[in-house]
Amino acid sequence: MLVNCVAYQNGKRLAEITPREIHDYVNRPDCFVWVALRDASDAELAEMQEEFDLHPLAVEDARHGHQRPKVEEYGNCLFVVIQTIEPDGDDLRVGEIDVFVGPNYVLSVRQRSERGFTEVRARCEREPELLRYGSGYVLYALVDAVVDRYFPLIDGLEAELEQIEERIFAGGAARAQVEALYGIKQKLVTLKHAVGPLLEASSKLHGGRVPQVCLGMGEYFRDVYDHLGRLNQSIDAIREMVTTALSVHLSLSTMQENETTKRLAAYAALLAIPTMIAGLYGMNFENMPELRWQFGYPVTLGIMAVIDIYLFRRFRRIGWL
Amino acid sequence: MLVNCVAYQNGKRLAEITPREIHDYVNRPDCFVWVALRDASDAELAEMQEEFDLHPLAVEDARHGHQRPKVEEYGNCLFVVIQTIEPDGDDLRVGEIDVFVGPNYVLSVRQRSERGFTEVRARCEREPELLRYGSGYVLYALVDAVVDRYFPLIDGLEAELEQIEERIFAGGAARAQVEALYGIKQKLVTLKHAVGPLLEASSKLHGGRVPQVCLGMGEYFRDVYDHLGRLNQSIDAIREMVTTALSVHLSLSTMQENETTKRLAAYAALLAIPTMIAGLYGMNFENMPELRWQFGYPVTLGIMAVIDIYLFRRFRRIGWL
Amino acid sequence: MLVNCVAYQNGKRLAEITPREIHDYVNRPDCFVWVALRDASDAELAEMQEEFDLHPLAVEDARHGHQRPKVEEYGNCLFVVIQTIEPDGDDLRVGEIDVFVGPNYVLSVRQRSERGFTEVRARCEREPELLRYGSGYVLYALVDAVVDRYFPLIDGLEAELEQIEERIFAGGAARAQVEALYGIKQKLVTLKHAVGPLLEASSKLHGGRVPQVCLGMGEYFRDVYDHLGRLNQSIDAIREMVTTALSVHLSLSTMQENETTKRLAAYAALLAIPTMIAGLYGMNFENMPELRWQFGYPVTLGIMAVIDIYLFRRFRRIGWL
Amino acid sequence: MLVNCVAYQNGKRLAEITPREIHDYVNRPDCFVWVALRDASDAELAEMQEEFDLHPLAVEDARHGHQRPKVEEYGNCLFVVIQTIEPDGDDLRVGEIDVFVGPNYVLSVRQRSERGFTEVRARCEREPELLRYGSGYVLYALVDAVVDRYFPLIDGLEAELEQIEERIFAGGAARAQVEALYGIKQKLVTLKHAVGPLLEASSKLHGGRVPQVCLGMGEYFRDVYDHLGRLNQSIDAIREMVTTALSVHLSLSTMQENETTKRLAAYAALLAIPTMIAGLYGMNFENMPELRWQFGYPVTLGIMAVIDIYLFRRFRRIGWL
Amino acid sequence: MLVNCVAYQNGKRLAEITPREIHDYVNRPDCFVWVALRDASDAELAEMQEEFDLHPLAVEDARHGHQRPKVEEYGNCLFVVIQTIEPDGDDLRVGEIDVFVGPNYVLSVRQRSERGFTEVRARCEREPELLRYGSGYVLYALVDAVVDRYFPLIDGLEAELEQIEERIFAGGAARAQVEALYGIKQKLVTLKHAVGPLLEASSKLHGGRVPQVCLGMGEYFRDVYDHLGRLNQSIDAIREMVTTALSVHLSLSTMQENETTKRLAAYAALLAIPTMIAGLYGMNFENMPELRWQFGYPVTLGIMAVIDIYLFRRFRRIGWL
Repeated sequence: MLVNCVAYQNGKRLAEITPREIHDYVNRPDCFVWVALRDASDAELAEMQEEFDLHPLAVEDARHGHQRPKVEEYGNCLFVVIQTIEPDGDDLRVGEIDVFVGPNYVLSVRQRSERGFTEVRARCEREPELLRYGSGYVLYALVDAVVDRYFPLIDGLEAELEQIEERIFAGGAARAQVEALYGIKQKLVTLKHAVGPLLEASSKLHGGRVPQVCLGMGEYFRDVYDHLGRLNQSIDAIREMVTTALSVHLSLSTMQENETTKRLAAYAALLAIPTMIAGLYGMNFENMPELRWQFGYPVTLGIMAVIDIYLFRRFRRIGWL
Repeated sequence: MLVNCVAYQNGKRLAEITPREIHDYVNRPDCFVWVALRDASDAELAEMQEEFDLHPLAVEDARHGHQRPKVEEYGNCLFVVIQTIEPDGDDLRVGEIDVFVGPNYVLSVRQRSERGFTEVRARCEREPELLRYGSGYVLYALVDAVVDRYFPLIDGLEAELEQIEERIFAGGAARAQVEALYGIKQKLVTLKHAVGPLLEASSKLHGGRVPQVCLGMGEYFRDVYDHLGRLNQSIDAIREMVTTALSVHLSLSTMQENETTKRLAAYAALLAIPTMIAGLYGMNFENMPELRWQFGYPVTLGIMAVIDIYLFRRFRRIGWL
Repeated sequence: MLVNCVAYQNGKRLAEITPREIHDYVNRPDCFVWVALRDASDAELAEMQEEFDLHPLAVEDARHGHQRPKVEEYGNCLFVVIQTIEPDGDDLRVGEIDVFVGPNYVLSVRQRSERGFTEVRARCEREPELLRYGSGYVLYALVDAVVDRYFPLIDGLEAELEQIEERIFAGGAARAQVEALYGIKQKLVTLKHAVGPLLEASSKLHGGRVPQVCLGMGEYFRDVYDHLGRLNQSIDAIREMVTTALSVHLSLSTMQENETTKRLAAYAALLAIPTMIAGLYGMNFENMPELRWQFGYPVTLGIMAVIDIYLFRRFRRIGWL
Repeated sequence: MLVNCVAYQNGKRLAEITPREIHDYVNRPDCFVWVALRDASDAELAEMQEEFDLHPLAVEDARHGHQRPKVEEYGNCLFVVIQTIEPDGDDLRVGEIDVFVGPNYVLSVRQRSERGFTEVRARCEREPELLRYGSGYVLYALVDAVVDRYFPLIDGLEAELEQIEERIFAGGAARAQVEALYGIKQKLVTLKHAVGPLLEASSKLHGGRVPQVCLGMGEYFRDVYDHLGRLNQSIDAIREMVTTALSVHLSLSTMQENETTKRLAAYAALLAIPTMIAGLYGMNFENMPELRWQFGYPVTLGIMAVIDIYLFRRFRRIGWL
Repeated sequence: MLVNCVAYQNGKRLAEITPREIHDYVNRPDCFVWVALRDASDAELAEMQEEFDLHPLAVEDARHGHQRPKVEEYGNCLFVVIQTIEPDGDDLRVGEIDVFVGPNYVLSVRQRSERGFTEVRARCEREPELLRYGSGYVLYALVDAVVDRYFPLIDGLEAELEQIEERIFAGGAARAQVEALYGIKQKLVTLKHAVGPLLEASSKLHGGRVPQVCLGMGEYFRDVYDHLGRLNQSIDAIREMVTTALSVHLSLSTMQENETTKRLAAYAALLAIPTMIAGLYGMNFENMPELRWQFGYPVTLGIMAVIDIYLFRRFRRIGWL
């Protein structure tokens, strides 16, 4: 589905054009065309392939989808894959933007993603002095926007982990916490798959030799790279803490088991002592003098009570109760 | 066993030939010969070694089998080993294709693998404009086909892991799940052995200096490399989740033990209280006034019931029952 | 908030100047200006950006804060981010200093940090022969001061870990220790985030090609790098010991559970034996000769005592009691 | 102890010579001498050092033994240390071959190893066209032989691991399995120490710049390198599976404990119910009508049986029995 | 404290000199001075700094102590820090030697270390042909001596680990073993900190570009490097085995708990059966024919015995007793 298709000249919006006009504008030296597709059909991709003369392997990747984030050069065309990640109920939905960047065109194909990039286009059009850099700047703006959207997800996981920690240390270890930790781990793997390869790939866009279309944009792409580095570090840190939290949970479960056992034992002892004494006086020996004493019964009850009170206090003191 | 042996000219099928004719075609400049063997005997390998003048160490490797995936150059002959992995009941069967690629020949030796590569030959013959690249393109088509067959295996493991996860969190931890997780781990090791070294080896086929026969095929081999990168990443991710799932399983088992202990304790208490009280009134003291009361017995039963009902509710409330 | 703003000539303090005078001094060849801001407002940053002609991306980073430690070159201006870490009750407070270093200016922006750097300025002014190196030396002095402040934090964690170790091995495993170990782990992650990236970044300031402003300061920055290496190593070591301590704790908990179970069992046996014997003599058979023996009762009590004493000793010997 | 000492010319055996004649042959251009020592004494090493003019540090290493596998160049002499590993009862015996290779001599010193290398000499002498390569080929043949002897050891460990796995999943977790897994881990460490450094060191013998004596042997040493890579990979894989097997064992032990607890609880309940009911009718209340009923006793027994049968079935159904 | 201060010429001892004479000898072309200090005071260091014109940062490091092992070049002066590790009761004492090496001087400062290096000086003076290499050879001799002293420490830890292993597998898991494993781990961390950075640093002393004073000593420093590599490998191996031993210990503890539970259960059953039967015949039903049978009592006792004997055998067979 075509979202929009606009021609720019010297950083300023020229006109909304139809795909069939692309051809004209692409060949004008100071112009570039920015086309945005969404969940593109095979026919649309084929049309674009022809208009922009895209490499068949890149188009094939865009058609298949589910690519790893990457930056590939096909001649002077750059093919960039970025994963979009959006919260979807309790899960994360992984979408993808495939960006084809040539000297005077940008084609972005958004797939399986709810949230669009009209704000990116708006921001670019508000800054004509930067948009003058051409298609490289548009690429930067797109990547920057996707990367900025990762931060709240990471912050959310951090907050979730903190809540689980508190609950683990406060209320005793429970099943729900293990499940939640596992859920965080799964989301981290998803995020890592989006961030890790992009971090590596984006290092090709600044520093030494960079693709033609990114020339002069080094500081901007280094900034994106730096943000990705921060994300990557946060992911690794949360990952490590999740692993630690899991073993802490195990330790606490084991100790809880221990405490339960002790508590049971204490109560069992409180019941077993009177039971044993009662058993003794339930014996049918003919010659048991206590049975005939006037106060044999209440004294026996008293002894039971005294022993149990003593034990109860003792168990309290050593922390079993 | 010879599967087939065909000569090609300018990307078009010339003729099915016999091994003895290979010699003639290999020396014609615009021709190349594509020979496919299956579970080759020593004699067949020796014949091919002579026809194509293969290096003895490479032939030795092909004869022995069970090689690590690799890409080796012997002069202008490329020797490529790829592992085929096929589901075999509950296990994975590891086979191997050894491909010898020279400027005008391709010799593929398939070993211990059920599924052949006739579809690859068919696909190549349908695209003469690509087959014109010669033996390098055939190598690409073979590697690409094997790599594509890894994907459903990984997807299968991912689905299996998801099922186990659900069962772990739903039905409580059971033995079968541990066994299944171990099985996944084993399969991942097998897949990693096929994918990891191939990823590394295939990086020699694009980028800087590449072997003669792969010249001009860089984008194709980079595509294969990229697929292998994705596979590798998925394997690592599943591997990590299996490890996490194992420790989650352990945590849940420990907690389940804890819950069992508590439940037992609760029921034990419900039985121990009446037993103790009954013991008291089973004592044989002569002077126990309650024994002579009209309603001593039903009142005692009532007291037992009241205590047990109270305890039962309390255990319910604190989650022990 | 402006902390101070001073002009230096040939390593000697010239005068405290106002931000509006910066312009004059920066252009004098042998002068440099050192401005210190604290929790700078957007307006202050904008003013400084104009005075020193700072790159917008760097200023943006300083405005946002919460950056990873890094060293970035923007033309001949160096932008350095360092994290300050201060104890804050039981937690660590992470602040940040952003330093902009040009050939003849240093602008440091301290954020979310209690402790200032007046002592650094004082030390620099006491050593005019070093301050003559110019802005590079000021950068060194600032980084060195922050890094030196990391050491007591690490020492504190080491001491804390030692205490926990002692308590684990002495008094038996307890919940509080697990919580404390988790706390140490969290602080290590915080410190690692401050030290790790700074170690990597600071390697750019000595050795091969270094930024203009650091020329001739190689040995000083190598010294800082070396200190960071030591910190990094200590962090990794404590981290490893925390992990080991956690598994030791788990092992000890499991063993403690085992010991508890044994102890319970021993006491249960001491009670169950007399209970069983008493049960026997509580049977109502008409023909039970022992019941009629003169000393049946005391003998039975004696037998109970003898068995229990024997068992008690036995349990003692095998370590169950 | 001198094993043998032979001079070769153009790949053919010339004569068995005495150590004192070495000098003569080493200086003839197309000759080389191959000396094999076993558990050499200091005197023998000193004699050889003089004959071949070996570097004192290399000789010192050979005298000390217990070196890490390595490849070192001393001028145009190559000093190679390889570890031999032989099964020795239930353990592995680690021996060592130190090989000194010069342009026209090979001196191999076998230490603490049962199995010799006469078969290697025989194989070399059967292939004069390869032996013509000179001392480099002898080095290859020796290293190849040692490396080939690692394979059955690894295969053995793999088989052992499989047996343990089966026993773990079949018969329930037992102590012997943990001990066996630990044993495998120890052997893997031993093998890793032999293979890992040799893999790294042998990479110096092919590829870019190689020592003089290995010139023209690149494909052979690459083959050895490849075998070492396979061994290394197998070791890592088994290592990983041993770790997983250990945690699987722990999980299964915990679950087994859980099952035991449940089973005990079920049987305890089956005994506790009749005990409690019997306790009730053991009370001595005067007014207990049931006691006087004609069928009070059998009915009570019947009720006990009914309850127990019901419970037994229920426990069966929920898997506690 | 000055240990000694000697001037050498052409590898031969010239004279013991006073610090004030150093100046004269250092400037004679074929001479070098070797000064050894122990726990040097600030004044001594300042004097030496002046005599040898040492870099203030290096002197500062030596004054502070507690450095990471390292090799630093300050102009043509080499500053080397090595950690000495000595057993100190049950702990390890970490000391340090700081060596300043210039073209014609060596200054070694030993700190917090019991054992001196007079034997190193003696060895050097016994080998004038090597000592002729000058200060570089002295550096080698010092480093070599320290590294050689690490080996017995590692061997000791290996032996200790073996003892713990045996005790774990023989006598059942105990607390002391966990504590001992933790102790080994701590010592390994200490040793790793001494060996790891030195390994890395010493790689600068052979191979490609080496500092001036080490010229021509490449093979000697490679030998040291090799020894450090072996130490490093051993440390990693022991470390891995300690981790494995800890998880083995946990597995065995869990199984032991299981065994304890089973044993308890078996004994509990042996007591509970007679208790229950006795309870039955303790009921007060009027119509219980067994009570009146002549042999009711002994038959009941017999039945109890038979059941218990049967159960005992059964428990024996299934390994619960």
